[in-house]
Amino acid sequence: MTRKTTEIRSDIAWSTPEKIGVHGYDLTEDLMGRVNFGDMAYLSVTGDLPDANTSRMFNAILLTLVEHGMVPSTIAARMTYIGAPESMQAAVAAGLLGLGTVFVGSTEGAAKMLKAALPDPKADADLDALAQQIVREHRERKAIVPGLGHPVHKPVDPRSVRLFAVAKETGIAGPYVDLMQRVSREAEAATGKSLPVNATGAIGALVCEMGLPWEAARGLGVMARAVGLVGHILEEARRPMSMELWHRVEDEASSEVRGKLRGK
Amino acid sequence: MTRKTTEIRSDIAWSTPEKIGVHGYDLTEDLMGRVNFGDMAYLSVTGDLPDANTSRMFNAILLTLVEHGMVPSTIAARMTYIGAPESMQAAVAAGLLGLGTVFVGSTEGAAKMLKAALPDPKADADLDALAQQIVREHRERKAIVPGLGHPVHKPVDPRSVRLFAVAKETGIAGPYVDLMQRVSREAEAATGKSLPVNATGAIGALVCEMGLPWEAARGLGVMARAVGLVGHILEEARRPMSMELWHRVEDEASSEVRGKLRGK
Amino acid sequence: MTRKTTEIRSDIAWSTPEKIGVHGYDLTEDLMGRVNFGDMAYLSVTGDLPDANTSRMFNAILLTLVEHGMVPSTIAARMTYIGAPESMQAAVAAGLLGLGTVFVGSTEGAAKMLKAALPDPKADADLDALAQQIVREHRERKAIVPGLGHPVHKPVDPRSVRLFAVAKETGIAGPYVDLMQRVSREAEAATGKSLPVNATGAIGALVCEMGLPWEAARGLGVMARAVGLVGHILEEARRPMSMELWHRVEDEASSEVRGKLRGK
Amino acid sequence: MTRKTTEIRSDIAWSTPEKIGVHGYDLTEDLMGRVNFGDMAYLSVTGDLPDANTSRMFNAILLTLVEHGMVPSTIAARMTYIGAPESMQAAVAAGLLGLGTVFVGSTEGAAKMLKAALPDPKADADLDALAQQIVREHRERKAIVPGLGHPVHKPVDPRSVRLFAVAKETGIAGPYVDLMQRVSREAEAATGKSLPVNATGAIGALVCEMGLPWEAARGLGVMARAVGLVGHILEEARRPMSMELWHRVEDEASSEVRGKLRGK
Repeated sequence: MTRKTTEIRSDIAWSTPEKIGVHGYDLTEDLMGRVNFGDMAYLSVTGDLPDANTSRMFNAILLTLVEHGMVPSTIAARMTYIGAPESMQAAVAAGLLGLGTVFVGSTEGAAKMLKAALPDPKADADLDALAQQIVREHRERKAIVPGLGHPVHKPVDPRSVRLFAVAKETGIAGPYVDLMQRVSREAEAATGKSLPVNATGAIGALVCEMGLPWEAARGLGVMARAVGLVGHILEEARRPMSMELWHRVEDEASSEVRGKLRGK
Repeated sequence: MTRKTTEIRSDIAWSTPEKIGVHGYDLTEDLMGRVNFGDMAYLSVTGDLPDANTSRMFNAILLTLVEHGMVPSTIAARMTYIGAPESMQAAVAAGLLGLGTVFVGSTEGAAKMLKAALPDPKADADLDALAQQIVREHRERKAIVPGLGHPVHKPVDPRSVRLFAVAKETGIAGPYVDLMQRVSREAEAATGKSLPVNATGAIGALVCEMGLPWEAARGLGVMARAVGLVGHILEEARRPMSMELWHRVEDEASSEVRGKLRGK
Repeated sequence: MTRKTTEIRSDIAWSTPEKIGVHGYDLTEDLMGRVNFGDMAYLSVTGDLPDANTSRMFNAILLTLVEHGMVPSTIAARMTYIGAPESMQAAVAAGLLGLGTVFVGSTEGAAKMLKAALPDPKADADLDALAQQIVREHRERKAIVPGLGHPVHKPVDPRSVRLFAVAKETGIAGPYVDLMQRVSREAEAATGKSLPVNATGAIGALVCEMGLPWEAARGLGVMARAVGLVGHILEEARRPMSMELWHRVEDEASSEVRGKLRGK
Repeated sequence: MTRKTTEIRSDIAWSTPEKIGVHGYDLTEDLMGRVNFGDMAYLSVTGDLPDANTSRMFNAILLTLVEHGMVPSTIAARMTYIGAPESMQAAVAAGLLGLGTVFVGSTEGAAKMLKAALPDPKADADLDALAQQIVREHRERKAIVPGLGHPVHKPVDPRSVRLFAVAKETGIAGPYVDLMQRVSREAEAATGKSLPVNATGAIGALVCEMGLPWEAARGLGVMARAVGLVGHILEEARRPMSMELWHRVEDEASSEVRGKLRGK
């Protein structure tokens, strides 16, 4: 019945009346006014500030998923805002909740897949053989390979092209980028379909190159979309669309069943 | 019964197979690899990229609220994560939901108050008279003045000091910063308490100086905390505290009522 | 620096290996298999089980807000589900987040207004005078009277009619129901518009009649909608509409701005 | 480029000025004042009202998960409430977000497992062989069998005992209840540990017996907890614990790292 108590400890931040420490930096002196928001995000994820190349790459990754226009998460956020305009934070939260296995969260799948196939990036590996194995295994269990294909962006996803270009310029591209591209070619050969590396696949590969844990991959998309969702809510406040959309849906969705009451 | 249909329109972003446009910029060519995450956030909020001074100020504002250690929102996020570790986005969302009128969302109150007192920043206004009026009105309706005081950071909030210093260096400080500071002095004189401008008050004033709508104020805090919350969840995954905290709360909270069943 | 520790205590429930106590009842022996879900909700809100009349009234109130078809909250929930189908709880949560001041949460406004006007239901009050005062005060500050009017249900809201009928049959109707109806008549006379007591106004009045705190009013709507939202998500899983809706919105919303890149 | 439009349709509810139809029932005439909240939940999930036995069973299931005291989801909800007391719905939503694979959502795992093992409840199946196979397969892939074991409730979970008793009394118990119990015995024999059918395992089995889709299993827990969470927030409003809990966590968690600034 007597439970052994364990420690409750967080090493992220502390504060005194005069100072706030964040991962060993003085928030006001070392960070505010000196460091950009993307580098602060890198600090939150890794515990360290990035060097110049890493900063450029990491900021580019974050920018990738900020905005893709009217997508399910932005619709959910706007629909929430019109019911609770006093709680903008709730509308953003509603938009984030859909970033699961189907959208954005799929970065995680690609990162996990690549890291599992190649645990040590310095190992001397046959990347073609790994790519073939990945595609074969997914086909055998009728699973889709994460990080490939896009309904709109074909035959290539311009975001992946740009991310891989920045990765090359910054010296961050390595075996995971290479492997992800081989997986794409292998999958295209096996299926005859256009299956380019999409933005979430590219981000998954770059998360591995940068040595981040795969759990971080989804987190980067969440940070990015939080920024974009605020923009959508401010637009909804200025130029509303959600009331109109609601009425259209209601009019169309329930028209056929009107009047059918049981036993009448 | 026939409803007049209105337009559904968003001017934020569009995409074609080859390109994604965001506020008139080519996402991959103009933004990714060139612009930092804070500037992208400014673009999301205002529709334009910032100049160098505005960028420095805006990034500093965003950094202010990323991290304040173990606060209610980080506890809520961690508690959510241990029940649904497969849905990191939900844990972040849970953490954001508490950014209401009491914490972080209070930026909004300060921005509204200052903008209402001084609708035109170029008007020739008696700031002392405005500050007195603000404090008097809040005292009359027994309301607290938003943006003043902090349980830990006294006699000054180091984040406000730093924000106002950056505002001066970048030429962004103006009548709203001035007014907010006079409101603080006036409130301290009227109450005899230590009521420095806190971080949310400083951000409220700077949102006004930058010409952002007051609705944006809360949004900046939401963006910032989304970043910090991802960091907390990654730490919870590496070094868990929430199971321990849960058991401690459960043991203490319900101990006194054990065994009291009605009629037994 | 040394903080005085206060107690952490909850009197709602406790558990031992063999038993779970909830508000003094043995969950498995006294409640499960004996008590309906609405009565359990009443126990959660008040700490006691209801008598037969109160049970009938309370269950009727809960039923009122379970379902109103395709409304903003159901659209938000479905849009969330298609991105994270592995997290049904997150889709329900997204749907609940819009139950703020505009929809459903407005029960709270009516309850607060009535309770403030008539703190003691046994007092000998001039209800007509109170109704006139309520309407006059709202008109003076250009505020809408909570609990009146509905875009679809006119000249009466059938849910209020039914709720008030059950209130009469169960002996629960009293001065708050009376006052709410007078407020409606007064507002209609003052504005010349159709402003019947709507469902949220009726629930607000009944929350007062039952002696519940006004904070409970919004909570009843939240419970009710959680039930309805699960139904919508199960329908979305069987007969999807959200992908189609997303594509329609995307096609229409961004069509006009395609191709306008700055400086090109 | 031209997309084929498909139908947007929901058969759950419709409304006219005078009437609201829900699954073919007149909400105000057929349901309000006649049907309890649990039966309305059954209608939301299945599209039909339950008979007396089904009603008793379904209400008992819903009651099971309403309340288990101070658990992670109730802590998350309370922590959210103190930051945004104006948005009770957001606090409830925060509490629901943790109902994932670890807690409550595990009902789903049990339902899926049983339905996969025995797709047709009328089939003449060797339940012992199925139970052995389930346990063996889970052990081979080092997965835990869903629906078994509880940290507090041992050697039996009193909620399962009660649910199975009601299932027997109502004639709802069948092969899935039987199979779930055999799986428990088999797992206990294989591991030597106490692995009774827990509440989520019992609910998973009963969801199968009642012919509900496995997706509904998690939904029942979500409905139930929404009710319990409202109760916790009302208690937090009356007797706060979250501010105290926050300060304790903050004091303990960050004490060791105070003062360690890099390069100082």
